[in-house]
Amino acid sequence: MTGTKASTGYFFEDFALDQEIVHATPRTLTVGDTALYTALYGSRFALQSSDAFARKCGLVQAPVDDLLAFHIVFGKTVPDISLNAVANLGYAEGRFLDPVWPGDTLSATSRVIGLKENSSGKTGVVYVRTEGVNQRGQTVLSYVRWVMVRKRDAGAPAPEPSVPELAPAVAAADLVPPKGLRFSDFDRQLSGSPHFWADYEPGERIDHVDGMTVEVAEHQLSTRVYQNTARVHFNQHAEGEGRFGRRLIYGGHVISLARALSFNGLGNACVISAVNGGVHANPLFAGETVYAWSEVLEKSEIDGRDDVGALRLRLVATKDQPCANFPYKEESGKYNPSVILDLDIWALIPR
Amino acid sequence: MTGTKASTGYFFEDFALDQEIVHATPRTLTVGDTALYTALYGSRFALQSSDAFARKCGLVQAPVDDLLAFHIVFGKTVPDISLNAVANLGYAEGRFLDPVWPGDTLSATSRVIGLKENSSGKTGVVYVRTEGVNQRGQTVLSYVRWVMVRKRDAGAPAPEPSVPELAPAVAAADLVPPKGLRFSDFDRQLSGSPHFWADYEPGERIDHVDGMTVEVAEHQLSTRVYQNTARVHFNQHAEGEGRFGRRLIYGGHVISLARALSFNGLGNACVISAVNGGVHANPLFAGETVYAWSEVLEKSEIDGRDDVGALRLRLVATKDQPCANFPYKEESGKYNPSVILDLDIWALIPR
Amino acid sequence: MTGTKASTGYFFEDFALDQEIVHATPRTLTVGDTALYTALYGSRFALQSSDAFARKCGLVQAPVDDLLAFHIVFGKTVPDISLNAVANLGYAEGRFLDPVWPGDTLSATSRVIGLKENSSGKTGVVYVRTEGVNQRGQTVLSYVRWVMVRKRDAGAPAPEPSVPELAPAVAAADLVPPKGLRFSDFDRQLSGSPHFWADYEPGERIDHVDGMTVEVAEHQLSTRVYQNTARVHFNQHAEGEGRFGRRLIYGGHVISLARALSFNGLGNACVISAVNGGVHANPLFAGETVYAWSEVLEKSEIDGRDDVGALRLRLVATKDQPCANFPYKEESGKYNPSVILDLDIWALIPR
Repeated sequence: MTGTKASTGYFFEDFALDQEIVHATPRTLTVGDTALYTALYGSRFALQSSDAFARKCGLVQAPVDDLLAFHIVFGKTVPDISLNAVANLGYAEGRFLDPVWPGDTLSATSRVIGLKENSSGKTGVVYVRTEGVNQRGQTVLSYVRWVMVRKRDAGAPAPEPSVPELAPAVAAADLVPPKGLRFSDFDRQLSGSPHFWADYEPGERIDHVDGMTVEVAEHQLSTRVYQNTARVHFNQHAEGEGRFGRRLIYGGHVISLARALSFNGLGNACVISAVNGGVHANPLFAGETVYAWSEVLEKSEIDGRDDVGALRLRLVATKDQPCANFPYKEESGKYNPSVILDLDIWALIPR
Repeated sequence: MTGTKASTGYFFEDFALDQEIVHATPRTLTVGDTALYTALYGSRFALQSSDAFARKCGLVQAPVDDLLAFHIVFGKTVPDISLNAVANLGYAEGRFLDPVWPGDTLSATSRVIGLKENSSGKTGVVYVRTEGVNQRGQTVLSYVRWVMVRKRDAGAPAPEPSVPELAPAVAAADLVPPKGLRFSDFDRQLSGSPHFWADYEPGERIDHVDGMTVEVAEHQLSTRVYQNTARVHFNQHAEGEGRFGRRLIYGGHVISLARALSFNGLGNACVISAVNGGVHANPLFAGETVYAWSEVLEKSEIDGRDDVGALRLRLVATKDQPCANFPYKEESGKYNPSVILDLDIWALIPR
Repeated sequence: MTGTKASTGYFFEDFALDQEIVHATPRTLTVGDTALYTALYGSRFALQSSDAFARKCGLVQAPVDDLLAFHIVFGKTVPDISLNAVANLGYAEGRFLDPVWPGDTLSATSRVIGLKENSSGKTGVVYVRTEGVNQRGQTVLSYVRWVMVRKRDAGAPAPEPSVPELAPAVAAADLVPPKGLRFSDFDRQLSGSPHFWADYEPGERIDHVDGMTVEVAEHQLSTRVYQNTARVHFNQHAEGEGRFGRRLIYGGHVISLARALSFNGLGNACVISAVNGGVHANPLFAGETVYAWSEVLEKSEIDGRDDVGALRLRLVATKDQPCANFPYKEESGKYNPSVILDLDIWALIPR
């Protein structure tokens, strides 16, 4: 007798509009996870590195890195949403609503907000809004992503196409600084950067200079600590026969590397408040070296606050390509082959 | 002047029947260790992942994974018992008696319960019963293992042969659910599996589907965090000239990988209560991919409990061989060359 | 518009005698970091491994490994002092003054105590005294190091040469045992070594026997967890074209590996009290195997204490060379090519 108890994830025809999916494995984040996060990316933002610094900024302790919280929530969605995904197509309307502290437990739920079968009849695009909730019932982050998912049965009928309208960017008025945070006493010597909100201008581009080569053990450790189960990241025996001949690195690993590299030039932009959009333009593989650059897209005040402002940033990561010349798109509008990430975020920074 | 203060471990003739060995290096386990454990294996059992979930199950917080506690205790025994081992031959009568919590300190002692020189006169088999004890003096786990150990001097006299009688399996009546644990409110959505005790039947086999490729850095990190000092795992300079030409992966690393993979199909079997037996059928090396399958060998109620039951499981791990066909033994009775682990455990699961 | 906000570190001509540099990124050390430290090196000293053992030695809990605290402080200095370094030339007058506990936040400041341009006119030697300070304002460690740093502009004028007088070793009278530490009840079975202060004699040499091969992922994880930003450790894309054709391993990684290996023979010398000097004699690269040996250089009582004594130790690490013959210097006075570290420390050990 052979059981069929192992889960194979949702296929395109398993999703229904407005369906709510409660994801498994609530996860308590600890200082063990934050230490690993530092080891994996080398992030140096003082607010997340130091309890003492965080206290001077009005917090009770150093919060968990925004992206670590994001990856944990994202990881929970994988066994349901994207185990049968062909591609992760985009993000929108990502908002960080409440800080996550060591000791907090995060759960995740997703609602299907769009479905559109592809003309091939073999795949379709699924849009979900995912929320990460802590053990006090507070939503700590919320975002939309859409993925291309295989059909189990090409003959299954196509659903009524429904594509959600998504904001091109989170409105500055909707940014929520972490409760209690105040930047009025922000120490620029300890933070490692002299530059505040007033020092950045829209159109300004910053080469983050440094490069970081990724090893297999590193991206496997990170992806597992997020309990992300996407098979393409872990199984060389299968992937050796697959599309790329090797294990693909989780896109979130690239985001965190680029963010850590961006410290050099944006060292005071220490809180990610929103993810307006993001594209994994090309795949990254072990042995390749990640570089990054940023462009200031927009600046905004935060209502009622004179200690903190917001920068809207394009964060671009490349592979095996230093960024002194800011590689981005070709004339055709296609990404330069070295570009692996094009992320659009709002970050908070002292004024 | 040259000292001889470095320890070289026990050789076969250094062991005496009934000898008690107090192992070195008491070890405080922390959330740092549990985060690393998650990063190394990607385990997703909700009880060990979430303080909030554990509280709903009557515990004060998420307990340390049973196998992490096992590896820590095992690691302490290595510098004494198996530094001169040729092979780790088996396990029996392993019982998990009390949960281990982050902050607990584990020590280990072993008693020699059997000795038998091999006919070659160069090695002998040592049987030890090892106990792991916490800082409150409670025995948290106990198991028997036997190893083939080299003699320092082939001319040393053989001891009177003595082979202990070992139970083929821990009796279900001897299983001890963690104090305070109750599964009456177990949330199957959060746990990630709909299947409870009643859903499994003896003879049922489950392919755990996923595969995980192991890197050198990963198994070295894990084996070191257990403070396991067996040389074959760490020294390429020496092992390059050795039996396999490369570093051997700690068998416990395989056990933990197989256990983590088994979540997919046994997601609610979240407590290991006993290790009835285990064989490392073939060696695993970095670059190879681990798959796993399970067979339900037996079911048992737990006396006086209607919320929890026990499943006796054969957990088999393979390398570079998916398990849809449940690879196990050949007609000759020998293990299929792809099989690396044959483990017999009792796991607790909600009813 | 292109910003120049990314920091490029100090060049030789940016340093001035007596200049004080406040380094960025205060860092809270946690049990997450200590678990990672164990995973990276496999250190087995009982005092740092067990809260229970530390309490029996009069401490409130297990202190952070002395070298982990050192690497964290050192790491903070890199973005200022040695981003443009050609070589790390030496250490002196290193003292550990107060234990570091999980939860403590460390900051670092350096004072320039010497400057000397090299005859080439392209580089110069910078001497700094660095202090690591905790969140209570206590100096936990202090050391001098000197590095050869590139000039940005070979035409920049040379400073008045100034070379500090440095003690050949920290005086035994200046060693400070951790507050509260008493070794009167030290348990030699749990510590893993029967040897106390009286058992060691000046001139005695100890082969630490074991070898440990280093992987890229391991040294990158360690160097990032220290937030050490030296580029040579991380960027294969650039270093592939560089001096060695590959990434160089952080010298501190070697120090910690050698120290962990030295447990086998010096298992009770569990507190590093001073670093008298140190030379990274040759570079280490991934794939190479580290061995170590020690020589007792000197013994000293600690004033007013009959429970603790000090051993001055030469700790030598080699690569791909076992240490049974204690490889060190050649007749010419140059280091044997296998020697990668020559460290001179004071360690505390029970009497």
